[in-house]
Amino acid sequence: MTTHQTDPGIRAQREAETVTPAPASLFTAERSAEIVTDSFARTPDPRLRAILGSLVHHLHAFAKDVDLTVDEWAAGIRFLTETGHTCDDSRQEFIMLSDVLGLSMLVETLARPAHGRLTESTVEGPFHMVDSPPRALGDTIDEAAAGGEPCLVTGRVTDADGIPVAGAHVDVWQADADGFYDVQRPGEVPDRNLRGLFTADEDGRFRFRTIVPRHYPIPTDGPVGGLLRATGRHSYRAAHIHVAVTSPATRTLTTHLFVAGSPYLDSDAVFGVKESLVRDFAVVDDPERAAAHGLPNPFRHVDFPVTVERDG
Amino acid sequence: MTTHQTDPGIRAQREAETVTPAPASLFTAERSAEIVTDSFARTPDPRLRAILGSLVHHLHAFAKDVDLTVDEWAAGIRFLTETGHTCDDSRQEFIMLSDVLGLSMLVETLARPAHGRLTESTVEGPFHMVDSPPRALGDTIDEAAAGGEPCLVTGRVTDADGIPVAGAHVDVWQADADGFYDVQRPGEVPDRNLRGLFTADEDGRFRFRTIVPRHYPIPTDGPVGGLLRATGRHSYRAAHIHVAVTSPATRTLTTHLFVAGSPYLDSDAVFGVKESLVRDFAVVDDPERAAAHGLPNPFRHVDFPVTVERDG
Repeated sequence: MTTHQTDPGIRAQREAETVTPAPASLFTAERSAEIVTDSFARTPDPRLRAILGSLVHHLHAFAKDVDLTVDEWAAGIRFLTETGHTCDDSRQEFIMLSDVLGLSMLVETLARPAHGRLTESTVEGPFHMVDSPPRALGDTIDEAAAGGEPCLVTGRVTDADGIPVAGAHVDVWQADADGFYDVQRPGEVPDRNLRGLFTADEDGRFRFRTIVPRHYPIPTDGPVGGLLRATGRHSYRAAHIHVAVTSPATRTLTTHLFVAGSPYLDSDAVFGVKESLVRDFAVVDDPERAAAHGLPNPFRHVDFPVTVERDG
Repeated sequence: MTTHQTDPGIRAQREAETVTPAPASLFTAERSAEIVTDSFARTPDPRLRAILGSLVHHLHAFAKDVDLTVDEWAAGIRFLTETGHTCDDSRQEFIMLSDVLGLSMLVETLARPAHGRLTESTVEGPFHMVDSPPRALGDTIDEAAAGGEPCLVTGRVTDADGIPVAGAHVDVWQADADGFYDVQRPGEVPDRNLRGLFTADEDGRFRFRTIVPRHYPIPTDGPVGGLLRATGRHSYRAAHIHVAVTSPATRTLTTHLFVAGSPYLDSDAVFGVKESLVRDFAVVDDPERAAAHGLPNPFRHVDFPVTVERDG
C-alpha cells in the first residue's frame, strides 16, 4: 500500500465515486452465493456476469461441502500469495497450478472437442513465454548441440478435407536431452534454443532438425511442487515437442507430439497425453538420407501430419 | 526460474525422486474431474484429499458450466498473477478478493454459526497485518489526534451464561476519520495508530477512548478494484471498529462493531454486516462525565457487550 492513497486528489476522487448501493445483503451461510451473485447483477458485460455467477456458486458450494475452516482458508490464501510471488518473466506458477489441477487440459479440450479427422489439442504449458525465432525449413532448432539423439521431424498441415494449408506457421518448442527448457538455463544455452517458427511450403509441408526431447519434472521448487509432494504425486511430464499451428484461414491448434515409449505417458503430471498424439520416433540407419538432411547416421525420424480446422 | 534448477545436485535429486505413477489418465472432458481426483488418491492426509477432491470437482464443473474459453482462462491467470504481485507486507489482495467474493464471510459464518446468545462474528479483513500495542484500560488508541469525533467505547466480555471472562484480551483496530488505516498512511501517523490490545478486568469489563471511524473504500488501485469497477460494484465498507476477543478459556471471536447510521450498512463491499453488530454511537453532553474519561464535551459513547463461547 502506498501513501498516494491519501493524496488529496485520490481522496477527492474517492468522495466523487458514483456509489450505487448493492441490494440489501445481510449475510447468511444459506443464502451466501445468492447474495454475492446479486451484488454482480449490474455487471455491464453479460458474459462476465455469467462467469462470476457460476464462479461464486461453485466457490461457495466448495466451502460448504468441505465445511472449510478459517485456518484452512488462511492456508489457501498463503498458498495463492506464494504462487503469485513465484511468478516472474520466466516462470508462470499459476499456469502450472492450473495444469496440475487438470483445468488447463479441460479448457483446451472444451475449446477443441475431439473430431475424427482433426488433430487433437493439448495444453500450451508454462514455457511458451518467449517468441520462437523464425527459421528456414530444414534448419535445426538445437543451437546448443550439447548432446541428445539427433532427430528429423517432418509433417504436413492439411484441413479436414486433406487440402494443404500453404504457408501455415508451425511454432515448435521443447526441452533438451536433460529435460530443461532454454529459459531454465539462462546463460548456459543460446537464447531461444530448441524453439523455432517455421513456415510450411505450398504443399503444407514442414521439416526441421532437433534432438529427441527427454521426459522432465515441472519445476518443484515453488508452491505447486509443495502441493505435489503433499499429495504423493510425481512431477514428471512424458517427453514431447510442443507444436502450435496457425494460419489466417484456420483455427489455431495447440498440441504436443509425444515420444512413444517415454516414461509417464500414462501418468503425465498435467494430464496432457492423448493417445492420438503419441508417435514413434523411429531409428533410421541410412547414411545417404542422413547426409541429405545434414544429420549424423543413425538418426531418429518422426512424421507428424497435422489436420486443422478451417475457419467459418 | 533460477539457474539453480540446473545445479548438478538438484539434477541428481530430480533423478532420484521416487516416482509413483498415477493411475492411467487419458483425458476426456466428461471424466476430467474424476481423472484429476484419482491423481490425488494417495494423499496421506485424508482431510487434504477431501478438500482437493471437492475443489477439483467444483473447479471443473465451473469451467464446464460456462464453457470457459482459452482466452477467458488466460485472463483469469493474468488476474491471479497480478493479485499475487499486489500482495506485500502491508497489503493482502487475495484476502480482499476473498472478501469481495463473500468467501471470507462464508468461512467465518460456517466456523461460528449464529447462536442466540453469542455475539455474531464477521470477517477479519486485510488490515490486521500488524500486532496491536498493549494499552491500559481507558487509554486512547488515537495517538494521531488529527481530528474526528471523540468517542468512548465500553463493553464487557461474558460467556453464554453471563459469567464474566476475566482478563480476556480485546484487540481493536479501526480506520480514522478520513477512512484510512495506519498502514495506509506510513510516515503520516504514529505507527500502530488506532490499534490497541486491552485486557479486560476481573469483571470482564473493558473501555477505551478513540474517534468515530468513517466508512471507507477498500483499496481500489489493484486487480480487486478493477473487478469492482468492471462489475459496477462500489468499494465501500460501512463504518466499523474491528474487535477480536481471545482468552485461554474461550473460542476466539472475530467481529466488528458497526456505527449505526453509517452509509453502506446495506451494501457493505465485503458482505460483513450483521444486524446484531450495528450499535448506536450516542452523543453524550455531560461535562463531568467527559472530564472523568479525559474526553472533550460532548462526546459519543457506544457500549458493546460481547458474549463468547467457552471451550469444551
